[in-house]
Amino acid sequence: MVAAAFLPELWTEILVPVCAVIGIAFSLFQWFIVSRVKVSADQGASSSGGSNNGKNGYGDYLIEEEEGLNEQSVVAKCAEIQTAISEGATSFLFTEYKYVGVFMVFFAAIIFVFLGSVEGFSTKNKPCTYDNTKTCKPALATAAFSTVAFVLGAVTSVLSGFLGMKIATYANARTTLEARKGVGKAFIVAFRSGAVMGFLLAASGLLVLYITINVFKIYYGDDWEGLFEAITGYGLGGSSMALFGRVGGGIYTKAADVGADLVGKIERNIPEDDPRNPAVIADNVGDNVGDIAGMGSDLFGSYAEASCAALVVASISSFGINHDFTAMCYPLLISSMGILVCLITTLFATDFFEIKAVKEIEPALKNQLIISTVIMTVGIAVVSWVGLPSSFTIFNFGAQKVVKNWQLFLCVCVGLWAGLIIGFVTEYYTSNAYSPVQDVADSCRTGAATNVIFGLALGYKSVIIPIFAIAASIFVSFSFAAMYGVAVAALGMLSTIATGLAIDAYGPISDNAGGIAEMAGMSHRIRERTDALDAAGNTTAAIGKGFAIGSAALVSLALFGAFVSRAGVHTVDVLTPKVIIGLLVGAMLPYWFSAMTMKSVGSAALKMVEEVRRQFNTIPGLMEGTAKPDYATCVKISTDASIKEMIPPGCLVMLTPLIVGFFFGVETLSGVLAGSLVSGVQIAISASNTGGAWDNAKKYIEAGVSEHAKSLGPKGSEPHKAAVIGDTIGDPLKDTSGPSLNILIKLMAVESLVFAPFFATHGDFRNPPKYLRLVFSRYFCFFVFVLLETNERVDNRSFVGFGE
Amino acid sequence: MVAAAFLPELWTEILVPVCAVIGIAFSLFQWFIVSRVKVSADQGASSSGGSNNGKNGYGDYLIEEEEGLNEQSVVAKCAEIQTAISEGATSFLFTEYKYVGVFMVFFAAIIFVFLGSVEGFSTKNKPCTYDNTKTCKPALATAAFSTVAFVLGAVTSVLSGFLGMKIATYANARTTLEARKGVGKAFIVAFRSGAVMGFLLAASGLLVLYITINVFKIYYGDDWEGLFEAITGYGLGGSSMALFGRVGGGIYTKAADVGADLVGKIERNIPEDDPRNPAVIADNVGDNVGDIAGMGSDLFGSYAEASCAALVVASISSFGINHDFTAMCYPLLISSMGILVCLITTLFATDFFEIKAVKEIEPALKNQLIISTVIMTVGIAVVSWVGLPSSFTIFNFGAQKVVKNWQLFLCVCVGLWAGLIIGFVTEYYTSNAYSPVQDVADSCRTGAATNVIFGLALGYKSVIIPIFAIAASIFVSFSFAAMYGVAVAALGMLSTIATGLAIDAYGPISDNAGGIAEMAGMSHRIRERTDALDAAGNTTAAIGKGFAIGSAALVSLALFGAFVSRAGVHTVDVLTPKVIIGLLVGAMLPYWFSAMTMKSVGSAALKMVEEVRRQFNTIPGLMEGTAKPDYATCVKISTDASIKEMIPPGCLVMLTPLIVGFFFGVETLSGVLAGSLVSGVQIAISASNTGGAWDNAKKYIEAGVSEHAKSLGPKGSEPHKAAVIGDTIGDPLKDTSGPSLNILIKLMAVESLVFAPFFATHGDFRNPPKYLRLVFSRYFCFFVFVLLETNERVDNRSFVGFGE
Repeated sequence: MVAAAFLPELWTEILVPVCAVIGIAFSLFQWFIVSRVKVSADQGASSSGGSNNGKNGYGDYLIEEEEGLNEQSVVAKCAEIQTAISEGATSFLFTEYKYVGVFMVFFAAIIFVFLGSVEGFSTKNKPCTYDNTKTCKPALATAAFSTVAFVLGAVTSVLSGFLGMKIATYANARTTLEARKGVGKAFIVAFRSGAVMGFLLAASGLLVLYITINVFKIYYGDDWEGLFEAITGYGLGGSSMALFGRVGGGIYTKAADVGADLVGKIERNIPEDDPRNPAVIADNVGDNVGDIAGMGSDLFGSYAEASCAALVVASISSFGINHDFTAMCYPLLISSMGILVCLITTLFATDFFEIKAVKEIEPALKNQLIISTVIMTVGIAVVSWVGLPSSFTIFNFGAQKVVKNWQLFLCVCVGLWAGLIIGFVTEYYTSNAYSPVQDVADSCRTGAATNVIFGLALGYKSVIIPIFAIAASIFVSFSFAAMYGVAVAALGMLSTIATGLAIDAYGPISDNAGGIAEMAGMSHRIRERTDALDAAGNTTAAIGKGFAIGSAALVSLALFGAFVSRAGVHTVDVLTPKVIIGLLVGAMLPYWFSAMTMKSVGSAALKMVEEVRRQFNTIPGLMEGTAKPDYATCVKISTDASIKEMIPPGCLVMLTPLIVGFFFGVETLSGVLAGSLVSGVQIAISASNTGGAWDNAKKYIEAGVSEHAKSLGPKGSEPHKAAVIGDTIGDPLKDTSGPSLNILIKLMAVESLVFAPFFATHGDFRNPPKYLRLVFSRYFCFFVFVLLETNERVDNRSFVGFGE
Repeated sequence: MVAAAFLPELWTEILVPVCAVIGIAFSLFQWFIVSRVKVSADQGASSSGGSNNGKNGYGDYLIEEEEGLNEQSVVAKCAEIQTAISEGATSFLFTEYKYVGVFMVFFAAIIFVFLGSVEGFSTKNKPCTYDNTKTCKPALATAAFSTVAFVLGAVTSVLSGFLGMKIATYANARTTLEARKGVGKAFIVAFRSGAVMGFLLAASGLLVLYITINVFKIYYGDDWEGLFEAITGYGLGGSSMALFGRVGGGIYTKAADVGADLVGKIERNIPEDDPRNPAVIADNVGDNVGDIAGMGSDLFGSYAEASCAALVVASISSFGINHDFTAMCYPLLISSMGILVCLITTLFATDFFEIKAVKEIEPALKNQLIISTVIMTVGIAVVSWVGLPSSFTIFNFGAQKVVKNWQLFLCVCVGLWAGLIIGFVTEYYTSNAYSPVQDVADSCRTGAATNVIFGLALGYKSVIIPIFAIAASIFVSFSFAAMYGVAVAALGMLSTIATGLAIDAYGPISDNAGGIAEMAGMSHRIRERTDALDAAGNTTAAIGKGFAIGSAALVSLALFGAFVSRAGVHTVDVLTPKVIIGLLVGAMLPYWFSAMTMKSVGSAALKMVEEVRRQFNTIPGLMEGTAKPDYATCVKISTDASIKEMIPPGCLVMLTPLIVGFFFGVETLSGVLAGSLVSGVQIAISASNTGGAWDNAKKYIEAGVSEHAKSLGPKGSEPHKAAVIGDTIGDPLKDTSGPSLNILIKLMAVESLVFAPFFATHGDFRNPPKYLRLVFSRYFCFFVFVLLETNERVDNRSFVGFGE
């Protein structure tokens, strides 16, 4: 009755991995081009100027002649700084992964034990839940395969973050060196490096998922229900790693940044990234571990989760029941098409057009978003036409709902375009080209207080349109195709992830390039060029965060839907005490989480301030530039603080679904998930945009390009000082607590989904086996202890007198 | 089958008004005592020292002899300042009421037309909804009586606010003069004045409601369903006024405060409340119109709404169906008992014990809370025993649920005690006697940025326990007695409202007293005493806000329950697109609202700064104290700004339920209400506590009572400057946007309740009569226009150059 998709199964089996491999190849090709900028003292500038066989302008000799271009010492210095940053980042990530690895092993064991316990570790097959005529694999198999998928997701996430960091630290000095030749050259290097990361992550995420499905299928055979249940572990693994990456990286980068700024810029009045500042290397390392590795893991997590949510709902819809493999793989086909579309889009920035002036940078980056969205719309139409039957049914909380292929096309499109709208609104509120940021800058006239009041108001206001965009896409996709629609809408928003990540990673690379230029003592003109790249990067970073939050909201809702389906809940009625208290407490969790992360940044920054002040006070000749600061100690402080401080918020997120689900049952857990979703998305957007606006308000005053901006400046004026205070407050908001909230809402949902059968069996005190209850009560004590104690732990009395 | 209450109907009919009258009499008696402190130059101190027939220590001659006690000029000066403040406040309130009055008439017409249209303005009786055997009055009658009740509620709210302001401005100078005799005397005057307001408001609210019910009953007779539906208009009227009072008053007070501080304290380095500051009178007026009149209207609104929610649910439960008047009046009996309990509690502060030292002030105020809660627990037990049948049924979304009287007793108690917990947690996070505020003060060492980061983190963290307390009371009361349980839990929290308001109003009165002492040029010692009163007042103000928010959450949920009952909705399922987008958008509304109010304060403050700077620059001799500033212009700026700026947020709150209900139907509206409730309560608590903590961190540094505090001070040190910045940022958070959010969540719920039959008939495009759709589309355009345009209206370009 229900027709199969137009595209034969064999073609799907070929197309998906081929697209993934194309993506990886393209990524490696970009890396190859970037690598041709040499950063070694013996070849230096002659090589970068002399390699003349590229079509991208590498061969032209129209290089602006400038002091320093052929100075080998500058190149050597850049190479040295690059190595320091790279080593610092590698060392931090290894430390982080070591700790997180222990947690992962522990958590993998929990997954296996808890899911295995659902049927008392029975190895017998059982009748399927949604099709009683068939036999499905036992819960023990789901437990084992979920654990494997969890580990795979975690490892892929680690690789995404780590490789992204490696590429970024590889590209930063190269961008600086290219900046000697002009802003266009520097832009291309930074952008290509971003693209390396974007494509590598998108393609490897797809490939690993595809291979995992096919390998698991060997065991599961016809039991797609169990197969895709087990696959959800992949999303959980990806997101768990992302949590620690975001939180740990976020605390690292902002402790260093805030600490460096408070002493350097405000007390000692030395410029940003000045090599005399002991925290400067830690600050640059932070950009790479926080904004690059953290962001990479975060978006990979969203991508993995959105795919898992779509697959698990599809497996109990007609696709799964009829074993239509092509239609089942619709989410993967969308992602495959996304890779091809992004590949074409990238060429617009790197090959079809060339950046010649500073003012072309921002439009070039914005055009990437528009181009990818427009082409992708066509791509989705093609995929929906060939990859879906014209009519099919989707599981809708106990009933099957008939859906047409054009409806699903609209679901994906609405997500894709909502992403673009969110991107542009974010840009409007955080770019200093528009009035909101200029108003905030203007309020600095009356001091830091009005700056903060206006900045907070801006952040609150910037929530309005994104929420309407998200609400509209939820309404359309939910109405057309229930939770499957929401999941594919999220995939639509994430389908251009390669481009999104490319322009996003471009930001920290440019930021680092500027830092290296300053530290290497390069000329004022070069610093101006890297600053221009960086200013554009700030806005794209805000756009990237907007995307991440918007997609997180959709993903989280899709996972929530998958969770309630799997837990056998048919309604989540606000008019029941369990759900309403769940909503209320869930809406509180983002506040609790933000309190933890912000206080962590604050106290880590205080430690950094103490160390930087100590070095300035005790190392003779440091301020004069005759002595070198002790960078390593600052790196260590950031590393130690972030590792230690990421544990309580991590526990809050990871344990809440387990505790609520086990002690209060799936209804309360549903309330908690819905509450944290609707509350968290608002705080996340407002925190990100407030921080971005303050940062760019400060840059607006510093750049002084308009009459208005000049009247507020120059650097060091009272309005500028007020702007610096706003920027510092915004740092933890926009780079630690705000973006981490995405993960809070996604991770709790995916964790609930994975553990759904466990809660449905054991939750709500219905039948909690004794040993589990024991484990849990210990857990609970540990949880409360860790959260309350560690958060109070900072004994500020110890700071008395360090200000001398 | 279901027994009636123990207390005969006649007794109920006598007891309720008698208690209300006792409350009013007690209030007048307190006023009489306060009035015996004379503020007129000819009698002056000799009179206040010479009246020796009081038992409260007025007659003793153990007056500390001090300079200024007998100086007639000081008394004259105080009288003059008091008159200026009182006139400013009266003039503002009259202006405000004039504008709001127009709105009220307009809105009253909407209520009548919309509710009348439900049955097409038919005057025929109809069968009752919940008991088909009986005949009920037509919708037109409900429309008319709802409109009357709305007007009565609005008028009572206006009177509450206005009389509160009158009392406060009557008492402020008296407190200052008494401070010459010692801190205990001053405390008693301030506290008694607070009690005047507390009892007057609680008692008149009860009395008007009781009389209204009895008058309406003459028409309605046996149709209690219609009777109590009409009564809900009383809650809407009270809360609508409160909205404008809170928002308008909040903008007024903070524009003046921030403006005065930015120029006075930060730029000119003159003390707070210095008479040379042109904005000083406006600042003191603001305390009275914002913190007194606004708070009074707010809590009156909560009280009226909680009573209405309980009554409307009871009317369709066994109380209403069996016409058991005593049980029906259970909410009113609780409030009557509350007045008696608070009366006894007040005597503990004014007569049973005497304050002798500064350090006894805070414990005395805290003891008020504890004593009233403990006695009230007994009171509730008595009322529940005599006022309720031992078993009865409560309407629970389509079904009747059997409830025992002891269960209802527990419902009320859980609300009462949750209020106490919220109060104490708020105190812990906002009083500088504990480590959280001390940590925030400590973070000022590293500047304003860390102060703000720590302050925000503190606010976020302070949400945790109150939310658990609210969730627990919802869970208990909802499980026992559905929405009726939640409503009586809210009433339990509000049952000690007279004491709560007394200690709350005490704060601004003391604040004003300090201002008058400074302006009248009184000695340092007197200023120290009023400062001590004020510091305790800051904490009690925070506690009052905590109460207001906690009760608002419960009230709002109860109203929400009454709304869905009345709209005929049986489930509000999160797993439907309409509800989930409602939740998401609802959770966004508090952000939109906060953005508006904060930006309003910011831009009004900028105007004030401009004017204050102008006066300092153009009036010769102002800084030297030889010329008088032009206070009136500053009062006018605050008045104009607040009247203008309160319109957009007011429209947002008032029109959202109408627009959502009409265009998207009751399901979406239910989602919006639940979303704004769970999100708004968090922002409200965190904003209030963050602001309170910054304020007290500043006071902690200024007072310098510990070694730690001294190491941060004195006034004018770098940490102190950072603390002042935090305090200024906190002003709009704690006094404008935070407390206004209570009203947002309550008002949208009560408005939905009143219009529920209209939405149920016309909502969701099911049958929108043409003329209404026309009205609405105009509305909608107006709404979008007002909100977007007025919010963008601030053209900051105009500020360029005013900083010279």
